[in-house]
Amino acid sequence: MLELHYWPGIQGRGEFVRLALEAAGTPYLDVARGLHEQGQGIPAMLGVLESPVLARPPFACPFIVDGRRVIGQTALILLYLGPRLGLVPAGEMDRLWIHQVQLTIADMVAEVHDLHHPVASSLYYEDQKAEALRRAEDFRKNRLGKFIGWFETLLDRNPPNDGAELPHLVGARLSYADLSLFQLVDGLLYALPKATRRVLRRAPFVSALHERIPAHRRVAAYLASERRLPFNEEGIFRHYPELDG
Amino acid sequence: MLELHYWPGIQGRGEFVRLALEAAGTPYLDVARGLHEQGQGIPAMLGVLESPVLARPPFACPFIVDGRRVIGQTALILLYLGPRLGLVPAGEMDRLWIHQVQLTIADMVAEVHDLHHPVASSLYYEDQKAEALRRAEDFRKNRLGKFIGWFETLLDRNPPNDGAELPHLVGARLSYADLSLFQLVDGLLYALPKATRRVLRRAPFVSALHERIPAHRRVAAYLASERRLPFNEEGIFRHYPELDG
Repeated sequence: MLELHYWPGIQGRGEFVRLALEAAGTPYLDVARGLHEQGQGIPAMLGVLESPVLARPPFACPFIVDGRRVIGQTALILLYLGPRLGLVPAGEMDRLWIHQVQLTIADMVAEVHDLHHPVASSLYYEDQKAEALRRAEDFRKNRLGKFIGWFETLLDRNPPNDGAELPHLVGARLSYADLSLFQLVDGLLYALPKATRRVLRRAPFVSALHERIPAHRRVAAYLASERRLPFNEEGIFRHYPELDG
Repeated sequence: MLELHYWPGIQGRGEFVRLALEAAGTPYLDVARGLHEQGQGIPAMLGVLESPVLARPPFACPFIVDGRRVIGQTALILLYLGPRLGLVPAGEMDRLWIHQVQLTIADMVAEVHDLHHPVASSLYYEDQKAEALRRAEDFRKNRLGKFIGWFETLLDRNPPNDGAELPHLVGARLSYADLSLFQLVDGLLYALPKATRRVLRRAPFVSALHERIPAHRRVAAYLASERRLPFNEEGIFRHYPELDG
């Protein structure tokens, strides 16, 4: 069975992969959340990452194990899984475009992480709070609206979205980038509800996508299950009210 | 002719694409460095980025224009160009692996940028120097050696590198990721010479790759030309001695 390896306890970057697997209804093993006695858990994940022999070890999690293939980097995992899960169109240029959007989502995710960790991932938030306040102010002022505005433009310029209830990034069918954009907006609404709601008022397509994705049958079942971890202050999207302005 | 669009005056992220084009000997137009009177220069680049009609605009530069195709995101540009420039092996999994390495190089590049801009790209270095000092200390202690150590592991586990003068990331032939790793190390040696030399002492394969890539005929010609911009304090790799410990 396909294995997903990611830190248990947080949604983090693993959630972008998890949403694609769940939306496609593909069985998978969430290894690090499994039991140590069954050869799973964090040690199993670290065993791959720190293997002394694996020729092509990922730099970090999330990564997937598909038979003998070990693949890291969230956007690449989705590039690889997309056709296998039926979550991309057939054409090469459409697939590369969806990957381009995903890479930009990844860039924004990295910036959101650094909102609360502008100095070092190895330090606590409390030890870099002064820096975080400055960084968050710039993010709200210069970055949040720019990113969301770009996604809005893409949705606005995808012809099938005209009058559609659920807009898509490419064509008229669900892709993994739609799911990732939902997750990004969901995380932003958790972390920075005031600033994000303000920006979404000028982004009707992004808002509609975020509202309608949870109506997808398998996504709805997943979100209601205990497999969907809640957002929390250990993950990438953290709600520290002082960073919300 | 293939067009590359990137800020003139700095190597930045555009340099990873430029090195691949130069190593392959492919003619290209470096649009933003061209003359305004010839329809080039920064306005031509911004004309694409800010086009009110382009269905799939990139979020930022660098991007390339290949006929009617406009493609952004450095790692994706290289994924697209790799086979066209003869800078990747034939197999799908080899190509995805090279892309995975490139994405990790991109992650490190983003961290290096934030060394001197931990608060905001919109502010001057001088206005975030205190934060930069803290961030650089963590980077030297926890990140630099981890990234370089990972690249060293990959080179060490690629069998053809055993005894080779010039090691490669995949197989025994040059790929765009080899060129990018050269550029990354070159930039680090410019920005943080003391810390980087210390780490390279324990990374003989990475050191050999960095030393030998400039002997490649077309790369050598490029590096000696005025097309190769010097590193400077406007780019991603900046030499501020106080950040080097």
